[in-house]
Amino acid sequence: MSKLRVQAFSVSIDGYAAGPGQDLPNPMGVGGMALHQWVLSTKTFQALHGDGAGGEGGVDDQFAARGFQNIGAWIMGRNMFGPIRGPWPDLEWQGWWGPNPPYHTQVFVLTHHPRPSLTMEGGTTFHFVTDGIHAALDRAREAAGDRDIRLGGGAATVRQYLREGLIDELHLAIAPVLLGAGEPLFAGLDLVKLGYTCTEHVASPKALHVVLARRRAG
Amino acid sequence: MSKLRVQAFSVSIDGYAAGPGQDLPNPMGVGGMALHQWVLSTKTFQALHGDGAGGEGGVDDQFAARGFQNIGAWIMGRNMFGPIRGPWPDLEWQGWWGPNPPYHTQVFVLTHHPRPSLTMEGGTTFHFVTDGIHAALDRAREAAGDRDIRLGGGAATVRQYLREGLIDELHLAIAPVLLGAGEPLFAGLDLVKLGYTCTEHVASPKALHVVLARRRAG
Repeated sequence: MSKLRVQAFSVSIDGYAAGPGQDLPNPMGVGGMALHQWVLSTKTFQALHGDGAGGEGGVDDQFAARGFQNIGAWIMGRNMFGPIRGPWPDLEWQGWWGPNPPYHTQVFVLTHHPRPSLTMEGGTTFHFVTDGIHAALDRAREAAGDRDIRLGGGAATVRQYLREGLIDELHLAIAPVLLGAGEPLFAGLDLVKLGYTCTEHVASPKALHVVLARRRAG
Repeated sequence: MSKLRVQAFSVSIDGYAAGPGQDLPNPMGVGGMALHQWVLSTKTFQALHGDGAGGEGGVDDQFAARGFQNIGAWIMGRNMFGPIRGPWPDLEWQGWWGPNPPYHTQVFVLTHHPRPSLTMEGGTTFHFVTDGIHAALDRAREAAGDRDIRLGGGAATVRQYLREGLIDELHLAIAPVLLGAGEPLFAGLDLVKLGYTCTEHVASPKALHVVLARRRAG
């Protein structure tokens, strides 16, 4: 069966996935961009968001690249799709990524507010799912076929799927930075009881990469 | 002025300094010994607790050794001194470490239950401080002179001193392990507001070492 995977999810030393005070100028919260320094200079990131050339290889890049391998569909929280809260005022907002988003699959956006599906260039279609995380996962599984499903952020979305034991594999990049407050990833979740263990770890100069995997029942 | 330093303090990926269910057979809690794997094989640890020979050098050993450099006094919580809770039934318990403990300084043990000071071989004297963390720090400063004071565990003790902004430097070893529950280090503490930043980080194959330091006021 295809896996539900979280990849390249950055957390601080003190366990925050975003800083305090998230808003449009600070979508990652105060100090939150420091979490992502490890990925910005990778070849993978530069190819997606930079000028398409350059960038560094190595451990960080291997983890960044892995996040796009064998992915047949995406699920993301609404805050990852955009900064708008509440009902959609109109259909103008089409994501952070311009006309050709870096997904190239069907993307299921969790929201309480219905909106028609949105087809972009490059094979990305955003679907807006209002009937919950299980429904989104069912639709993503159907779209992904044999390939895996990647679950994007934010922390609240990842925590919902963790709590239900639905995530098969979670790659965290622990960045050497303190945030002090913001969106905690682990608070109130007993990952051991939920069946997770650390199956892989390797450090770069910029982050400690750990992979948490869940034992499949029976 | 001499510094108050926490050294070689191990935490899990999910921020626990000890596992759940601490008791005499499991002083680190269930799974908690996995936090300390990085230190067990170091030269420093082997010289202190092993047969005195062997052990590995490298990054882990450098951090283990640093924890004993320029230390003029220790402070520790009672649970680090021993497993007994409540009033001392007698004076039989003399610590986990045998007749010659690895401190070789005055050691101030925080407890609610008075007990006469205890002089051991090798220059270690345990004093039992019943009037709080500030009193223990004052006495340790006097004992340490120009040298630094090392603050041992457990997590509750470290958290008390962190909350008051009294720790100058804190070396954490983030071990690639999940504990799921136990003694959280960061919960409810905003280390950024308390003035801490990450000033140093380096990984070994067994742990990510980070040093958190506090800006001194004025």
